[in-house]
Amino acid sequence: MNQNTIKGIIAYPITPFNAQEQVDITLFKVLVERLIASGSHAIAPLGSTGVLPYLTDEEKEAVTEATVQQVAGRVPVVTGVSNLTTERTVHHAKFAEKAGSSAVMIIPMSYWKLTDDEIFTHYEKVANSISIPIMAYNNPATGGVDMSPALLKRLLQIPNVTMIKESTGDLQRMHYLRREIGEDVAFFNGSNPLALAAFAAGATGWCTAAPNLIPELTLDLYNAVQDNNYDLARDIFYKQVRLLQFIVSKGLPRAIQAGLELTGIPAGYLRSPLKPLENTDKDQLKAILKECSMALV
Amino acid sequence: MNQNTIKGIIAYPITPFNAQEQVDITLFKVLVERLIASGSHAIAPLGSTGVLPYLTDEEKEAVTEATVQQVAGRVPVVTGVSNLTTERTVHHAKFAEKAGSSAVMIIPMSYWKLTDDEIFTHYEKVANSISIPIMAYNNPATGGVDMSPALLKRLLQIPNVTMIKESTGDLQRMHYLRREIGEDVAFFNGSNPLALAAFAAGATGWCTAAPNLIPELTLDLYNAVQDNNYDLARDIFYKQVRLLQFIVSKGLPRAIQAGLELTGIPAGYLRSPLKPLENTDKDQLKAILKECSMALV
Amino acid sequence: MNQNTIKGIIAYPITPFNAQEQVDITLFKVLVERLIASGSHAIAPLGSTGVLPYLTDEEKEAVTEATVQQVAGRVPVVTGVSNLTTERTVHHAKFAEKAGSSAVMIIPMSYWKLTDDEIFTHYEKVANSISIPIMAYNNPATGGVDMSPALLKRLLQIPNVTMIKESTGDLQRMHYLRREIGEDVAFFNGSNPLALAAFAAGATGWCTAAPNLIPELTLDLYNAVQDNNYDLARDIFYKQVRLLQFIVSKGLPRAIQAGLELTGIPAGYLRSPLKPLENTDKDQLKAILKECSMALV
Amino acid sequence: MNQNTIKGIIAYPITPFNAQEQVDITLFKVLVERLIASGSHAIAPLGSTGVLPYLTDEEKEAVTEATVQQVAGRVPVVTGVSNLTTERTVHHAKFAEKAGSSAVMIIPMSYWKLTDDEIFTHYEKVANSISIPIMAYNNPATGGVDMSPALLKRLLQIPNVTMIKESTGDLQRMHYLRREIGEDVAFFNGSNPLALAAFAAGATGWCTAAPNLIPELTLDLYNAVQDNNYDLARDIFYKQVRLLQFIVSKGLPRAIQAGLELTGIPAGYLRSPLKPLENTDKDQLKAILKECSMALV
Repeated sequence: MNQNTIKGIIAYPITPFNAQEQVDITLFKVLVERLIASGSHAIAPLGSTGVLPYLTDEEKEAVTEATVQQVAGRVPVVTGVSNLTTERTVHHAKFAEKAGSSAVMIIPMSYWKLTDDEIFTHYEKVANSISIPIMAYNNPATGGVDMSPALLKRLLQIPNVTMIKESTGDLQRMHYLRREIGEDVAFFNGSNPLALAAFAAGATGWCTAAPNLIPELTLDLYNAVQDNNYDLARDIFYKQVRLLQFIVSKGLPRAIQAGLELTGIPAGYLRSPLKPLENTDKDQLKAILKECSMALV
Repeated sequence: MNQNTIKGIIAYPITPFNAQEQVDITLFKVLVERLIASGSHAIAPLGSTGVLPYLTDEEKEAVTEATVQQVAGRVPVVTGVSNLTTERTVHHAKFAEKAGSSAVMIIPMSYWKLTDDEIFTHYEKVANSISIPIMAYNNPATGGVDMSPALLKRLLQIPNVTMIKESTGDLQRMHYLRREIGEDVAFFNGSNPLALAAFAAGATGWCTAAPNLIPELTLDLYNAVQDNNYDLARDIFYKQVRLLQFIVSKGLPRAIQAGLELTGIPAGYLRSPLKPLENTDKDQLKAILKECSMALV
Repeated sequence: MNQNTIKGIIAYPITPFNAQEQVDITLFKVLVERLIASGSHAIAPLGSTGVLPYLTDEEKEAVTEATVQQVAGRVPVVTGVSNLTTERTVHHAKFAEKAGSSAVMIIPMSYWKLTDDEIFTHYEKVANSISIPIMAYNNPATGGVDMSPALLKRLLQIPNVTMIKESTGDLQRMHYLRREIGEDVAFFNGSNPLALAAFAAGATGWCTAAPNLIPELTLDLYNAVQDNNYDLARDIFYKQVRLLQFIVSKGLPRAIQAGLELTGIPAGYLRSPLKPLENTDKDQLKAILKECSMALV
Repeated sequence: MNQNTIKGIIAYPITPFNAQEQVDITLFKVLVERLIASGSHAIAPLGSTGVLPYLTDEEKEAVTEATVQQVAGRVPVVTGVSNLTTERTVHHAKFAEKAGSSAVMIIPMSYWKLTDDEIFTHYEKVANSISIPIMAYNNPATGGVDMSPALLKRLLQIPNVTMIKESTGDLQRMHYLRREIGEDVAFFNGSNPLALAAFAAGATGWCTAAPNLIPELTLDLYNAVQDNNYDLARDIFYKQVRLLQFIVSKGLPRAIQAGLELTGIPAGYLRSPLKPLENTDKDQLKAILKECSMALV
């Protein structure tokens, strides 16, 4: 499957746990199926939403295999394989390829801030160990390291680094990327409340956990954008912007888990130290979801 | 002239000085005429671009009168009347109204950070002293005080505060304003590199110094937006985005003055401590302007 | 009077206004006298505490003259002469010298962020117009421009720039200055809650409005430091640190005015848009002042 | 061993790797012995300096055991046991206790920002599973989550959370802690360039990797402080401040490894993605170390 087929709404499932805080693969598959059935253009397991860093190696591998099986070639699978060490990142990238992923997504996780050279070599070593494309993912708010637009451009020198996901919420970085790397390279927006602006700026796709809760609104936005109808896109965007801001501000795993439960869909438990949303937050989410649902009528 | 007629491209002239650093009113009028002739939808003297805070009271009044005379009713005039003290702001607001301005623009300048209540009372006192509309202007990078979206919404309770200009470059604030105050209140984007995104978000107009240098590109962008043609708007935006970023990063008075000179248009001197652009910056500006000009062919 | 005599506790009076928001020179002199009588080592009118930027030229001159008269040579007078334009700064610096100030203090106020070269030339032009020493004052929180330690060091190349006042609250900058410029140049701490740490780092003096409210505690701290008795200095510091943090967080003019009133000392009015402290803040200040006063018993 | 014996210079060894990037326990013990021999008051393995998050569970356990064996009761051992999940943190805390550590140090590592309640419960669960004291460690620059002083105070409600290590470099937080929790609770400074100021503010100890390179200077500083001789402490501090700033700015594992090599002490390799210091940085470090060494003569 060619990476050029990766575009549109890239949906991020959560990783659900059972009451003993063990990964619930059966429930995970149900949640993945919902995302495909509702029209998402690609599935991205083991992202930030999927609490990748909180899982053991074995759990990561089980989630990877489960996704590929469930998706069964219907849409591309972009598997998160990020790890603090280069050695573990290579390991998981190779596993993801072997398991049948269409591409891997890598955020340069940090404890110690990494230099540009350290990051470049990190990507290069992983890239050399696999043949599927890599989506370089920048999200300092979670990963702790901020890749400049210039570094992201430099990463594109590595043959199979062909996609960039920008989640800083800084639109000027997208302007830079689009201007500097042109229309041929795919850049993806990972900042939910920036969805409309990123498409206006030329984004290839939107990496988002929102389809777990509002699949129609995310797809309607994308379709209006494809039709170059921004008057419509704007209307659709303002119907969901409060939800997009809410899920980001409360943390995607907490917010999506609560939102699914509120919608009547089992979503399991979180792994400690993460806790469920507070009740007042749940009430707010309920009101926002109701607003979104009325918007569809 | 009704404030609802204020929309589109609101052009900000510089305030030129002679070699003795005195305001050059004759040259100022020439520069204003260029902005009108090139199609700008409104003229906004004594903004940040017009180095308002560096002028004496007498100079501010002379610039106000010169603008109204030169514009002669062809487009609205939005006069900057900001001052550290409430008393001086009232003074200049009354002068601007008497001189024939269509509206006044007020940024709550700060030395000591102002509380929300201080800011509200400041606007209220000025508003009570005039009958023309007020554009509340938020730009912490220059004025030093940051008005939250919630405070901006509160300011709209004051009858003649009818317009908001947001220059933080934070698109989420525009989303908030549009959602909270609806489509009836005019919100203006004052962050040049955000021009495309702000229109996508529903901005009524763009407050900008760019028409001094690239009037066609700014108007073409607005027209494409009016036509709901964002594929075209995006193309036009990327032709000017480097210039927009440059003029902001170098300081508008310095960058516009240098750009005018490079284009062969006399632009006078700056007032100390402001100095002309460095030569290396001028070279960069020259290259960027050439790119913009070729984009028009 | 030699600038080397400027050290210890540099006290900043407020500028009081009457009910009509006009400067009350009579009351100002009373407040200055209190500061001298309580042992402050120098008086610094027209600082941030003295709301310099909110005054007209005439008012600034009246305050300057009143200070010199009242002080009558008992301690040095360090007069604030900062202004947005170089021309006005020169004007006030010359006035301050002629009026009998021992030194002038200059913060490079900004609307447009100034370049290092602009700032250097600004100081140079003022320095060339007077013969008394200059204290270069860095306080981005009020002035809006942040002078790097390297720029401050560069300013010391100008013969009569002999003192530096650092108010960022960043102790590492003081370490840099002390290491780079040595013990001969006087550096002053302008961040109240950093008083103890700055003395430990080798500061020559403390520029502060606190003596308006707690003159004994500020002097006791300085004396313990002079005696190299930091066990004592620490005890004294912790008795006043809550007050120091409070007056900074609420804005010095508001907090000092309220504190004086609470202590039974007339302190006049503030000039709009500044408003008096809220009642809840006054209650908190009252409790803090009581704590300080008990600490003295 | 009582936690009250933990004070003074708490030394952090690096975790050295061999050429194949495997942990080199033999070399680790040599480096620990150097720290003890040179007079450090406690040893803290598996800190940020010890690249804790880059190690496997087995490696962490081997390092813990090696430290306890090598130290052999001569000084307290404070073992880092932080992990993203609560379950793994409990596991390592229990292991550290069983292995003979005097205390454990825990930083609430984050991928998703944790709420105060999540952090509190995390500490509580770990605390309930062990009987040795816990040092709560705040360092948002590495761990990614910032614990407010109020939250740190709240953590002290948990019986065996008895020590706080603050590494933000924000002195006001130390003032708050000292004022709010009094002199009985031990607070430790983990910001190297703040060493002098933190002692002046009343810190119980200094958690630092500097003893790997300049053991005498760190101990001399502590001794001067113990003697209440801050004139001397200041002199000693300024002799090492450039080194302290350098090792922090370049990342402790990289800087300490390079510094040891420059001093002729084998220090092994780093684990990828971390790379050795650039050559220009090594040259600078060499010059700084020479300065420090001359300071000792």
